[in-house]
Amino acid sequence: MDLQGEFEFLEFNVGKRKDDYSSTKIQVVGETEEHLQKILSELLRSGAMLQETPEVEYQASPGDMMLPDEFYCTTHHPTWVYMKGDWVEVERLMMDKHIIVEPENNRAYCKPISTVRMGDLVVVGDRGVRIKHPERPREGVGVFEFMNSDVSPEKPVTSIIKEIARSLKSNASNGGKIVVVAGPAVIHTGAAPYLAEMVKLGYVDAVLSGNALAVHDIEYAIYGTSLGVNLEQVKVQSPRNHIAAINQVLKAGSIKALVENGKLTKGIFYELIKKEVPFVLAGSIRDDGPIPEVIMSSNEAQARYREIVKDASFVIMLASTLHSIAVGNMLSSQVKTICVDINPSVVTKLSDRGTSQAVGIVTDVGTFMPLLVNELKG
Amino acid sequence: MDLQGEFEFLEFNVGKRKDDYSSTKIQVVGETEEHLQKILSELLRSGAMLQETPEVEYQASPGDMMLPDEFYCTTHHPTWVYMKGDWVEVERLMMDKHIIVEPENNRAYCKPISTVRMGDLVVVGDRGVRIKHPERPREGVGVFEFMNSDVSPEKPVTSIIKEIARSLKSNASNGGKIVVVAGPAVIHTGAAPYLAEMVKLGYVDAVLSGNALAVHDIEYAIYGTSLGVNLEQVKVQSPRNHIAAINQVLKAGSIKALVENGKLTKGIFYELIKKEVPFVLAGSIRDDGPIPEVIMSSNEAQARYREIVKDASFVIMLASTLHSIAVGNMLSSQVKTICVDINPSVVTKLSDRGTSQAVGIVTDVGTFMPLLVNELKG
Amino acid sequence: MDLQGEFEFLEFNVGKRKDDYSSTKIQVVGETEEHLQKILSELLRSGAMLQETPEVEYQASPGDMMLPDEFYCTTHHPTWVYMKGDWVEVERLMMDKHIIVEPENNRAYCKPISTVRMGDLVVVGDRGVRIKHPERPREGVGVFEFMNSDVSPEKPVTSIIKEIARSLKSNASNGGKIVVVAGPAVIHTGAAPYLAEMVKLGYVDAVLSGNALAVHDIEYAIYGTSLGVNLEQVKVQSPRNHIAAINQVLKAGSIKALVENGKLTKGIFYELIKKEVPFVLAGSIRDDGPIPEVIMSSNEAQARYREIVKDASFVIMLASTLHSIAVGNMLSSQVKTICVDINPSVVTKLSDRGTSQAVGIVTDVGTFMPLLVNELKG
Amino acid sequence: MDLQGEFEFLEFNVGKRKDDYSSTKIQVVGETEEHLQKILSELLRSGAMLQETPEVEYQASPGDMMLPDEFYCTTHHPTWVYMKGDWVEVERLMMDKHIIVEPENNRAYCKPISTVRMGDLVVVGDRGVRIKHPERPREGVGVFEFMNSDVSPEKPVTSIIKEIARSLKSNASNGGKIVVVAGPAVIHTGAAPYLAEMVKLGYVDAVLSGNALAVHDIEYAIYGTSLGVNLEQVKVQSPRNHIAAINQVLKAGSIKALVENGKLTKGIFYELIKKEVPFVLAGSIRDDGPIPEVIMSSNEAQARYREIVKDASFVIMLASTLHSIAVGNMLSSQVKTICVDINPSVVTKLSDRGTSQAVGIVTDVGTFMPLLVNELKG
Repeated sequence: MDLQGEFEFLEFNVGKRKDDYSSTKIQVVGETEEHLQKILSELLRSGAMLQETPEVEYQASPGDMMLPDEFYCTTHHPTWVYMKGDWVEVERLMMDKHIIVEPENNRAYCKPISTVRMGDLVVVGDRGVRIKHPERPREGVGVFEFMNSDVSPEKPVTSIIKEIARSLKSNASNGGKIVVVAGPAVIHTGAAPYLAEMVKLGYVDAVLSGNALAVHDIEYAIYGTSLGVNLEQVKVQSPRNHIAAINQVLKAGSIKALVENGKLTKGIFYELIKKEVPFVLAGSIRDDGPIPEVIMSSNEAQARYREIVKDASFVIMLASTLHSIAVGNMLSSQVKTICVDINPSVVTKLSDRGTSQAVGIVTDVGTFMPLLVNELKG
Repeated sequence: MDLQGEFEFLEFNVGKRKDDYSSTKIQVVGETEEHLQKILSELLRSGAMLQETPEVEYQASPGDMMLPDEFYCTTHHPTWVYMKGDWVEVERLMMDKHIIVEPENNRAYCKPISTVRMGDLVVVGDRGVRIKHPERPREGVGVFEFMNSDVSPEKPVTSIIKEIARSLKSNASNGGKIVVVAGPAVIHTGAAPYLAEMVKLGYVDAVLSGNALAVHDIEYAIYGTSLGVNLEQVKVQSPRNHIAAINQVLKAGSIKALVENGKLTKGIFYELIKKEVPFVLAGSIRDDGPIPEVIMSSNEAQARYREIVKDASFVIMLASTLHSIAVGNMLSSQVKTICVDINPSVVTKLSDRGTSQAVGIVTDVGTFMPLLVNELKG
Repeated sequence: MDLQGEFEFLEFNVGKRKDDYSSTKIQVVGETEEHLQKILSELLRSGAMLQETPEVEYQASPGDMMLPDEFYCTTHHPTWVYMKGDWVEVERLMMDKHIIVEPENNRAYCKPISTVRMGDLVVVGDRGVRIKHPERPREGVGVFEFMNSDVSPEKPVTSIIKEIARSLKSNASNGGKIVVVAGPAVIHTGAAPYLAEMVKLGYVDAVLSGNALAVHDIEYAIYGTSLGVNLEQVKVQSPRNHIAAINQVLKAGSIKALVENGKLTKGIFYELIKKEVPFVLAGSIRDDGPIPEVIMSSNEAQARYREIVKDASFVIMLASTLHSIAVGNMLSSQVKTICVDINPSVVTKLSDRGTSQAVGIVTDVGTFMPLLVNELKG
Repeated sequence: MDLQGEFEFLEFNVGKRKDDYSSTKIQVVGETEEHLQKILSELLRSGAMLQETPEVEYQASPGDMMLPDEFYCTTHHPTWVYMKGDWVEVERLMMDKHIIVEPENNRAYCKPISTVRMGDLVVVGDRGVRIKHPERPREGVGVFEFMNSDVSPEKPVTSIIKEIARSLKSNASNGGKIVVVAGPAVIHTGAAPYLAEMVKLGYVDAVLSGNALAVHDIEYAIYGTSLGVNLEQVKVQSPRNHIAAINQVLKAGSIKALVENGKLTKGIFYELIKKEVPFVLAGSIRDDGPIPEVIMSSNEAQARYREIVKDASFVIMLASTLHSIAVGNMLSSQVKTICVDINPSVVTKLSDRGTSQAVGIVTDVGTFMPLLVNELKG
């Protein structure tokens, strides 16, 4: 209707009971071939299939980091391509990427444009591509389903924290991988000891962040300040401490070496290293230092992030805009995603950029973390 | 300098040590008499005094709710007028009000324009008026002094909560009066049981709010929902519950009657009534109901608020814009004032409207209250 | 499904083409009679009808400002009750109110609880009540439909302004009533001359606001400042000016008298009075003054607001939280409603309180108004 | 006082008239040598000098990217070191960096830690370092001085825009360098044609941004959409367009090549290339693509940014958090800096990170830019 096409329902079979499936057959009429294609493209991206399944179409990439003009652009929903009479699931699915097919191996997978190489077979058009949107839960709808894409701060966050704790526990006991994306406000707001404890309790399987989180965590562990602000007395103490912390790491050679030489004895990164939980720190243009673990090439940092999130089942984003949106783009819509930020605009941005499954909790990470850890221990 | 006057320091005596006072004598030159008056007016409002103290000037009000054109407009700093050879302190000081003098009784006091009556002697001009700005603390500067007028959410709020708890305890043990101004988000965010407990613990001497706080508190106590949202399951349950709660109060005749007939057995207002802590509910144009305790005349509600805050020593504003700004206007700059809101704009607004002493804590009241009550009990 | 009922589609007739209607007949099964009623209640509020239309049920109010316990609580969608074999449309529809029926006159209408009188016949339960949700537009979906309930600031607001101007023009030329709800930030941000011009151009049929809008508009017109801030030089000039403005109105007796005696010669209220456009100013607890036109009883102010909006077809809310939410509660879901605020939380709050049709434009009213007036004149 | 030291004013010479200088001699007493050093360090950073000027102290860096433990950490105020009897001004001053001295050449300059090499002579301690804080303007205080560090959206932004336009014009006519830092919301909000025009008018001497600004600008120029949203009709049209835009650039080889082959014919980057205005695009972890001009090494991007801003006299930050904070860290406190964002938290963050001179304008960049360009043309 939005595209002003004409249509007729030829069949409409509604599942009569709760667990039945429904299906419909629609005849769509466009004013021109092009108009029709536009409508079909929308329908296919919404999960519709053509009556006769055509073979997926693909073209060879004309050069390294180049796509054929008609490339298919992926959603973050599970996707299949129809190749040689079979539906082949697309591996490593991510949003706004491209599907490379290897017909001889019966394989299809996502690639960012930066890794496309000349001759890669890139899916073009919409034909032979099938998408599965998340099913509406049948019952027992939980907090997450209700919160979805809502950005109101007027929510009973202690109840939500209880639900998140329950969900984290069940995820952990099912062997799910929990990834935490964290921004430096975690340290500034005094939440570092609580995230450290969450690591210790075994609820963190990887941390994705940047230089600042590590620098301020180490500054706080060694000097008791974050960006020079004493977190207990809440006053500016020593603006040079964060550079001094960087210098400590640079002199030791790495965070790990700083733990080993006994200079770093607490905090998030101390616990990560003690428990051998992996972390990836992506460099950015505003970094001081940076410390040796930071990956300065944005392409390489992306690749390392992708490697971490590819089998994640639960992602918690804590007071981080840049890294959260970067991670959001890498996630399938089936990954449970929680975004905690005091600023509703972060949740709005995440959703504007397509991470539709993210549940936004508009609250203060500095008060959220102590209450969450308390529930996790309870 | 801003007004482009000329000046010369005739004397400048700086207190040499920490507890000494400093003083200066400045000669100010304006281009015209009017220019000079403008500069003098600024200086007098900043706490300066003229070399020779002139008698305060006043004129009779020309009619009910009218002021002489040259009326003096008050600040919220302690103020004196020079009358018949004596400095007389202005009573009931509030911002943006007027000083009425009774020379025969040697008294001076603030009045809002709405209560000015024909013939009241209203101070005009700046002569004979002295203001005392808060002194800069000599040492031991605490959290509050550092936080002042800062609107950053990136603060270690758990440390700040500890300091507030300490401050509340010391205030209570010194017999200070603690007034809580609260908005309905206190209920929506699940903080009601914690504010109720704070009342029970004796840290609340009065509550200032409106219809919505009471209605949602009672809705939550009776039906388990706030504006129809179930606060434990975080889902919309019964949109009619808040009207049903209003109906319960209307049928009982008052909140107190609802406690007495056994229908209201918990929550903020239950505790307030049990402990006989006074509360004032001001009506507003968006009220449903309202319930009988709500004062529908905004003039009368203002008067009742003023009566409550006139001897307050500590004011906590929780997630409330309208009532907080109203209360802010009534407070002397010497009253410790804390404003807790997840939205930095509330603190900014409060400060834009002149409540310069308010310390803004940008955090979620739903997580702030459980942590605060925990500290108060510890 | 959310309520965990069982169901079966007995019929499902999908309109085959764009302009056809669809209908379905569903058999719903609950575990208990109460469970079933809960499910039915939800379905009826979503627009479903029972197979056999029962007569609407009602009970006499047990007392002034009291409702029968099972009162029906209204939505803001057009509503009918089935009385003596006919569907009678409910007049003066508003959200969260009650339906009073007069069977002998074949009438039904909404009333707030404060105006319910003993013996009024109040609809109870859900039977015999029908609701019509807004239909999804068939085509030509405009900006408003897309913006709905979105709170992102990252929108092309100049395009949106063009669309609003088009919509205002078409509304005006169709004789629709345009109501503006405005907060004092309209003055502080320098938008007063533009709103004044919009009045002059004939695009404002009523203004709903409070004391502050009028006071600051008059302060700006007479003294060039708003809350003492010089709007051209953007600096604090005279904190007493807003009280002086109030004093001017009080001395004249009314805003109208101030226009007539030649002291008020420009601004929003000058234009309103010149063009005899009605305005209602509702008092609030934070008012200075207030000026004579302000209605201090919140009940009476509500009634006057309701009188203004009852036949409005377009409502523009400018930088006002309190009055916008109050007005939102009074509007049928069919009234085009635009809410302009730089703070996304205002839009979120409006939507949290049920004004689902409001289109939120997250932008600065101080830059929005000049651009809008420019389009209206173009 | 904050550090609880004792002091005595030995001399206090106040400049008697407007253009006189003032000076004081203070004797400070600490409880211990360490206590005294702490107090002295604060005083020296506030602009005080020791009675006898000691030679600046320095130590050789112990290794590449390492500092001596007692390194001096810079502010962003103009700084001198006392070397061999002369005050030598520190070149390339930036905040939170280190001073390298070359005594043989009588030179001192700032370096980030990442470029420190073994053997560099790094200033340690506070002795022999002098800082000059910005002087309070004597008169004619303009809009900028009043706005400073204020984050209120309730400001008359049209007046502020007039002042910015005046200031830009005077800067341009004095040969000052104007640097624009811009985020992708410039495109999403429809401000691209206006920034493009500002480039054309000659008010932009360099642009600092990231991949997204360029990608969305080119997407809008070629396809009429930004992140797939049609900016005129304000609706989602083609989510693949931004990847298609990237593909266009990758196929052409660069933005410049895309202009040369006639495919890019309007927009910000078209104008930049036509007028040969330099731009630097810093890569980040959330980039799609990126396009060839983007610098993927964060260290190298930082160096290129620093090169651009080192002689800037006016910096305008438009709706960009990451790049604005990065640039803020590189600026001397003497560079006029304006930060335009609809989200007050960006201004707060900038100020929390030390860019104290930034004037925050809380408004919508989508309405700010048309009004600014209108003033620049008028």
